[in-house]
Amino acid sequence: MSAVQPRFQHTGIAFGCDYNPEQWSPEVWDEDIRLMSEAGVDLVAINIFGWSHLEPRAGEFEFGALADIIERLHRAGIRINLGTGTASAPAWLVRRHPEILPMAEDGTRRYQGGRQAWCPSSPEFRSAALRLVREVAERFGDHPALALWHVSNELGCHNALCFCPNSDAAFRYWLRRRYGNIGALNAAWGTAFWSQTYQEWSEIDTPRLTVSTRNPGQMLDFRRFSSDELLAHYRSEAEVIRSYSDAPITTNFMLTSHIDGLDYWSWADDMDVIANDHYLDHRLSDPTVELAFAADLTRGISGNEPWLLMEHSVGAVNWQPINLAKAAGQMTRNSLTHVARGADAVCFFQWRASVQGSEKYHSAMLPHAGTNAASWREVCELGEIVGSLSEVAGTRVESEVALVFSWEAWWATEEESRPSHALGYLDQVHAAYGALYALGLTVDVVAPDADFTRYKLVVAPGLHLVREQHARSLTDWVFAGGTALITFYSGTVDEDDRVWAGGYGGPFREALGVHVEEFAPVAAGTVLRLSTGATARLWSERSTATTARVEATFIDGPARDAPAITSNAWGAGQAWYLSTLLDHSDYTDLLATVSGAAGVHSAVPFRGGEGQLELVRRRGEAHSYVFIINHADAAATVEVSGLEMITGVNVQNQWQVPAGAVRVVREALA
Amino acid sequence: MSAVQPRFQHTGIAFGCDYNPEQWSPEVWDEDIRLMSEAGVDLVAINIFGWSHLEPRAGEFEFGALADIIERLHRAGIRINLGTGTASAPAWLVRRHPEILPMAEDGTRRYQGGRQAWCPSSPEFRSAALRLVREVAERFGDHPALALWHVSNELGCHNALCFCPNSDAAFRYWLRRRYGNIGALNAAWGTAFWSQTYQEWSEIDTPRLTVSTRNPGQMLDFRRFSSDELLAHYRSEAEVIRSYSDAPITTNFMLTSHIDGLDYWSWADDMDVIANDHYLDHRLSDPTVELAFAADLTRGISGNEPWLLMEHSVGAVNWQPINLAKAAGQMTRNSLTHVARGADAVCFFQWRASVQGSEKYHSAMLPHAGTNAASWREVCELGEIVGSLSEVAGTRVESEVALVFSWEAWWATEEESRPSHALGYLDQVHAAYGALYALGLTVDVVAPDADFTRYKLVVAPGLHLVREQHARSLTDWVFAGGTALITFYSGTVDEDDRVWAGGYGGPFREALGVHVEEFAPVAAGTVLRLSTGATARLWSERSTATTARVEATFIDGPARDAPAITSNAWGAGQAWYLSTLLDHSDYTDLLATVSGAAGVHSAVPFRGGEGQLELVRRRGEAHSYVFIINHADAAATVEVSGLEMITGVNVQNQWQVPAGAVRVVREALA
Amino acid sequence: MSAVQPRFQHTGIAFGCDYNPEQWSPEVWDEDIRLMSEAGVDLVAINIFGWSHLEPRAGEFEFGALADIIERLHRAGIRINLGTGTASAPAWLVRRHPEILPMAEDGTRRYQGGRQAWCPSSPEFRSAALRLVREVAERFGDHPALALWHVSNELGCHNALCFCPNSDAAFRYWLRRRYGNIGALNAAWGTAFWSQTYQEWSEIDTPRLTVSTRNPGQMLDFRRFSSDELLAHYRSEAEVIRSYSDAPITTNFMLTSHIDGLDYWSWADDMDVIANDHYLDHRLSDPTVELAFAADLTRGISGNEPWLLMEHSVGAVNWQPINLAKAAGQMTRNSLTHVARGADAVCFFQWRASVQGSEKYHSAMLPHAGTNAASWREVCELGEIVGSLSEVAGTRVESEVALVFSWEAWWATEEESRPSHALGYLDQVHAAYGALYALGLTVDVVAPDADFTRYKLVVAPGLHLVREQHARSLTDWVFAGGTALITFYSGTVDEDDRVWAGGYGGPFREALGVHVEEFAPVAAGTVLRLSTGATARLWSERSTATTARVEATFIDGPARDAPAITSNAWGAGQAWYLSTLLDHSDYTDLLATVSGAAGVHSAVPFRGGEGQLELVRRRGEAHSYVFIINHADAAATVEVSGLEMITGVNVQNQWQVPAGAVRVVREALA
Repeated sequence: MSAVQPRFQHTGIAFGCDYNPEQWSPEVWDEDIRLMSEAGVDLVAINIFGWSHLEPRAGEFEFGALADIIERLHRAGIRINLGTGTASAPAWLVRRHPEILPMAEDGTRRYQGGRQAWCPSSPEFRSAALRLVREVAERFGDHPALALWHVSNELGCHNALCFCPNSDAAFRYWLRRRYGNIGALNAAWGTAFWSQTYQEWSEIDTPRLTVSTRNPGQMLDFRRFSSDELLAHYRSEAEVIRSYSDAPITTNFMLTSHIDGLDYWSWADDMDVIANDHYLDHRLSDPTVELAFAADLTRGISGNEPWLLMEHSVGAVNWQPINLAKAAGQMTRNSLTHVARGADAVCFFQWRASVQGSEKYHSAMLPHAGTNAASWREVCELGEIVGSLSEVAGTRVESEVALVFSWEAWWATEEESRPSHALGYLDQVHAAYGALYALGLTVDVVAPDADFTRYKLVVAPGLHLVREQHARSLTDWVFAGGTALITFYSGTVDEDDRVWAGGYGGPFREALGVHVEEFAPVAAGTVLRLSTGATARLWSERSTATTARVEATFIDGPARDAPAITSNAWGAGQAWYLSTLLDHSDYTDLLATVSGAAGVHSAVPFRGGEGQLELVRRRGEAHSYVFIINHADAAATVEVSGLEMITGVNVQNQWQVPAGAVRVVREALA
Repeated sequence: MSAVQPRFQHTGIAFGCDYNPEQWSPEVWDEDIRLMSEAGVDLVAINIFGWSHLEPRAGEFEFGALADIIERLHRAGIRINLGTGTASAPAWLVRRHPEILPMAEDGTRRYQGGRQAWCPSSPEFRSAALRLVREVAERFGDHPALALWHVSNELGCHNALCFCPNSDAAFRYWLRRRYGNIGALNAAWGTAFWSQTYQEWSEIDTPRLTVSTRNPGQMLDFRRFSSDELLAHYRSEAEVIRSYSDAPITTNFMLTSHIDGLDYWSWADDMDVIANDHYLDHRLSDPTVELAFAADLTRGISGNEPWLLMEHSVGAVNWQPINLAKAAGQMTRNSLTHVARGADAVCFFQWRASVQGSEKYHSAMLPHAGTNAASWREVCELGEIVGSLSEVAGTRVESEVALVFSWEAWWATEEESRPSHALGYLDQVHAAYGALYALGLTVDVVAPDADFTRYKLVVAPGLHLVREQHARSLTDWVFAGGTALITFYSGTVDEDDRVWAGGYGGPFREALGVHVEEFAPVAAGTVLRLSTGATARLWSERSTATTARVEATFIDGPARDAPAITSNAWGAGQAWYLSTLLDHSDYTDLLATVSGAAGVHSAVPFRGGEGQLELVRRRGEAHSYVFIINHADAAATVEVSGLEMITGVNVQNQWQVPAGAVRVVREALA
Repeated sequence: MSAVQPRFQHTGIAFGCDYNPEQWSPEVWDEDIRLMSEAGVDLVAINIFGWSHLEPRAGEFEFGALADIIERLHRAGIRINLGTGTASAPAWLVRRHPEILPMAEDGTRRYQGGRQAWCPSSPEFRSAALRLVREVAERFGDHPALALWHVSNELGCHNALCFCPNSDAAFRYWLRRRYGNIGALNAAWGTAFWSQTYQEWSEIDTPRLTVSTRNPGQMLDFRRFSSDELLAHYRSEAEVIRSYSDAPITTNFMLTSHIDGLDYWSWADDMDVIANDHYLDHRLSDPTVELAFAADLTRGISGNEPWLLMEHSVGAVNWQPINLAKAAGQMTRNSLTHVARGADAVCFFQWRASVQGSEKYHSAMLPHAGTNAASWREVCELGEIVGSLSEVAGTRVESEVALVFSWEAWWATEEESRPSHALGYLDQVHAAYGALYALGLTVDVVAPDADFTRYKLVVAPGLHLVREQHARSLTDWVFAGGTALITFYSGTVDEDDRVWAGGYGGPFREALGVHVEEFAPVAAGTVLRLSTGATARLWSERSTATTARVEATFIDGPARDAPAITSNAWGAGQAWYLSTLLDHSDYTDLLATVSGAAGVHSAVPFRGGEGQLELVRRRGEAHSYVFIINHADAAATVEVSGLEMITGVNVQNQWQVPAGAVRVVREALA
């Protein structure tokens, strides 16, 4: 076992894919490897769903095919991102131990026949999985092609929450460790209400469906527990691997819109390198903005270290209601957004489009149509671009703005009983991020316990649940001269989901200089008008400014005449509060004002791009690299000088980036 | 045990709240009691969810805290509305007897962790609950502060329907008592259809989900059974209490929009005083009208005796999709609507806003923000208003109009297979009531078996299921000179949900003078035009007038040329029929015509108020009291003379009630 | 047992109904039979739900009432369509064998109390059912009134899919027979993906719910299995009957909009005559077109033999969200559409409207209102019309156009993961059929393995799954000179739901002369414009014409500049491809072009009717019969000569068919 944490090492930016050769014959393998080389692929994830192939019957192992494919890839100079193969259990295991199957909140089971059909707290599953991991690690742990270990797959994508008896027992164990005595649990969950006081640990279960609503403290702890259980599973696999291998270990996170099962802030330290899967979600109003946000969040999880984009898609996915194809150039822009925001690998799910199974309509590098396809040609071009950006690998993204993000706040915001079911945490985060994005600003997404000293502006959208010390850390930073924008519903509850009494905003209250008496959400379709002419929706608050300056008031709606936007001088700094959801352009105007006051600038000056221009600088030791991604229909003008690495042209001062184009300019460091 | 029914006694109109001191420390109790006195609170409901505090372990009772809080309240002159504490079972009981947990219609259980997680037919639950009630009643049954017993809480709010094996057995027992022999059951349920004939009682279960649709007769009886089971539970608790206490006993009904589990007509006689919980439902098109309806219905259940508003809200609730705050003055108007319509108590859920648990976002008298809040100030003002109306207590509401309401009709209307799922019983009732409300008329809501002799007009909207003798009683009253308006789908089925053949309308047919051949519901969005220029939706009928005079015909739609509104001279009276759902203003016009013909008048003459003016007279022995509640944005003029009790001003003849204001004028009785 | 297949014999076109006399007393029976005769009824289905009446307790049989009713009908000259009575099991059987109850995909049961509450694979159900069938067949198998056996009822309407342990076992048995060895199953289902490989048959279950998505190959086979299980049940009942009776045997199919459980192509050979139940579905955009389609499909299933309309409705049904009444004349038009398209019987569910049970609001020949009703009068008129068309019975429908329909394609199209959930198979079929209908063309709906030689034009809309030999048979027919229109998503997968790689369209690709690279579905509301000015929705494709001529391109959307409509000369024939969903009028224009090129004509020339005119010719030995059904609001002109059989008028050349009218012209054969 290595004493120091192994690091992922690669020459340049990795370009790769998931590969599931089990679906194909060896002749196809050879064609695949030839085409991979043609496309510039140099990192391939295999054995993700290997279990039923490696261990077709309990305890009978067959490693021939896996060894064969590893050798073939190795011979072609392609490095391996090796799955432990435990992502989905084979049918025989479920037959032997049906209690492995997850249980839904109504007490019904979910069955074999898809993927990830296992309870994270199942001892039988864990023990069988670790036996497989040991076999795999022992055989391939020091293979020269091994670049990285890939534990399981998209942990928690489907099975984050399990309500089975094994989960009940594990939840009780977790609670004993958290609370020590049952009185502390009762206090934390507020069980005095509705006659829910527990006397014995054995009286507690996972929060299965009730006839009414569930205890929100129990629900919140169940979310924490569920994240921890899968982390414990990850750790147990990693521990086995480490006995046999010095290669870095990770798993592919799912920082991608709606996936909310795991608190990745608590996972980061266990990863040797952070890896993420991201897919455009066309159910969102602006999937491209969410992509940038997810990339920035991944970088935040990674502590501003470079990270790996382990999966994204060439074109359409298969699991949304309507799965849109990507426009020409969109895959390239999407890939470069990830690289701009810190990715040192661009990988896809998957190499060759499946012709069977649940994901056969998911796009792939090599489509059903074969190489005679525009998408294949764009893949090859992207391989060249990625190759041309080799020296960017290892550099760090620069940012002056931090946006606070919290899974605990997400979970607490969306509890069963709440002021408005129209209020979603992620929507608020996206709205704030989208305004910053429209201004061309680069944002670090940080945890509530972040060190804010390197920033000029901190935005905390809807930070509903916040621990007192984290809130204090933020307001102390403001006091020392920082500028913060905090938005409605922030500071409502503490870590036990207990309301901070005395006026909403709790630990932010004094710094904000506002006394919030009452939440006043509004019905769907209601538009609120502000004294500034701005419009807003969703929410308002009945409040009064205590020490704050009122920047805007509501001129109609349930909070008429109350402040909508305030700013408060707090020590040497400035604390802004927004008590409604501004419409996009007004939100952008507000953030222009606030960021202007905080002295925040975009990476380079620009003109045009209609709020759809990404500008990010990665800084290395000798050079820095400005990424410009123009999603707009028209050219934009940027002011930056140096070698444009994709076109190979030297650019100077103001020059034009065409509609839809991606450019990367290498700047000499002063 | 007392031989005569105890009556609720109180000086003036009670003002109070639910109070859950278990959530707070004793220091908070003292502050609470001080502030209660400040606000004028004189009746407090406690121990509603006391079980897990009183009996933390099976058979171990701890009454110290409850005794303490009772003494503190008593010392402050606050009277007690004492809960039996059985509303939710503690976790240990469910652990010992998991069969207590309710079962949903698909056979899955619902679990501990919310509230009311018990099967109404569970012998284990009942036995444990009664043991607790005995302990409580024995200790506090003759306490001088005890004003009222509060059995359980909102019975049937969540657990009205249980499909577990205990419920199966209880249902069979109930059916045997109802039918005596299985042949009578088969006849009542029409089991000859679809091969459902039963030979043995043991073959029958509760109506769990089927692959098709369920037997509607079985469903209807299951609704009746479910109401009766909870009533039996109430009676069993009340019987225990009566052994130890002479105080009046009640439970808080839920006459509030969508709650349909219990047939409160059959519950009324068991209550020593009727109490109700009411919450504005913002999913309705006009929540304020529904509030007035619910208050009138509560008075109806109470047989025009004064009743108690046991819970309502200061501001937003927490269980609707979007929970709107109340506008300034709205809480006062809401409260006075209840008083105007017969309430002798104005109580809230709850005193101090919880900071934890499922209801922490439910408004309270003392909000999270504390006493520095507009809502607290309005609570204190309301306390004063209620105090100033003291002499109104005990007086009776006057009305010339009755509206017939029936839970059985509700249940039968909304069976699984029906002409139109867009047709809801409550919608029809609200539509008719809303038209009467817009005319400023006071309405008694009565049961189908009511004595109509004191009324000038009876409205029966959508009285789908009706027993023959009740229908006859109504038509006989018309024959004797009354005026009735009956609307579509009325008189369709008898008490067994059996269609009255020979033309719809069944027992009303002859009095209406209409032959209805066929229902013709219309698609969502379809607007029907009538020959009078009126517009209508939802429904039409293919019918012919036999003896009736046609007041309006359909000029389009599936019943083109058929009568839409008819009136029929029946004996000395007049029977109107409306075969569609008129739009609100046209419905109001129709009721203006019908009520005008019936000689019905509003409590006092008025002008303005745009259909949003409530006018109700309560009559006492020495005086009568006219309540005027102006929900409109403009002042209204009313014609009434006497002392206005809230402002303390003498008014005479025509005077103005400002927008949003509440006024109560004491009139001298002639 | 008879060696030759018995045929259904009847004088003229049968006119009849379901009759459930169990609901009524014998006096009512006599009235019923009198009124049946008045209406012209000559075929009555009884004993459909007879089980609980015939066998009230296990093994105790009571046949008196059934024998009585048969005699009464027989005496009145009415023939019997005798149910086996097994459609719904009595409660006692379910009590003895609760495992008979179906299981839903989440593992919960569905219960007694509706109808069809039985697992198709239950040995206990089958054995009890066959015992009843034997008793019935033995008693009535040679009764002179017996016209037809009616096995069970609407098989699979509610219970097509069962996931219980008995179904698991039966599914495994079925799979063993299909695949022989487990490797073949793994290959067919693509279990290599997601670690789903099976080693033992015992590891396989029915596809119950998973946390993710299910294996589509398993789902597809489960649909096939489920259809086969009910067919096996049918066969087992038929086999028992055949031991005792020479009368023809059938069951009522459900070729009616959304019902997709059974692959009736595989059922046809087991029926002595094809019978169908059809109901207008007002959730569809054009229910009348669907009716015509269903009738043509029924004729297709019947191999162009005359078939029986076993159930349809006089007016509203009771199971849709809003159940619309029929307009005056609509029932007659609906009935004649069936006759025009090959029905030799017009029967209704049901005779007398039930006054109890789940179907009491379903219309009937004798409505609740009794004989004083317009609908009853129209029933009697229809009886006369049917009588006047007696000689049409036994004749065959003529058509030059075939539309390919496939349940397997339906099932595969609507799997859980797919390019667009907005894409429904039936919608595509209806869109193509609707365009042909608008042109007044008669269409044969045929199976993918049909013999196309008798047609001039074949349309294959969305034939997603297709077997190679069937695709080849179609393209070979084109090569030989035929004209085909194939639409998008056709030819995507083979019989194992395996994508045909190399460009979508698979086995149609070469004949179409198009290379389809990528699917590009569009969001709801997106309108695509074509170079011809046509508009389209739902779908587009990125493709290039290889040998095809481009008839239209997309001028916007994700496939801008790609071909939208192509035609390809293939041998002596012409293969058209449509890669989007044209709006109705543009689709009609395209089919006008294609059918014009193919030399297809309507049954007779016409003018007017606005696309709502049905024109169908049935050809007999001595005469042919042209049916003209005018659904439009205006008269239409048709060119046909002969005796109009309903009005009894001789018509010649161009004459007018009034709005809403039905006409049948007897032509002399040359």
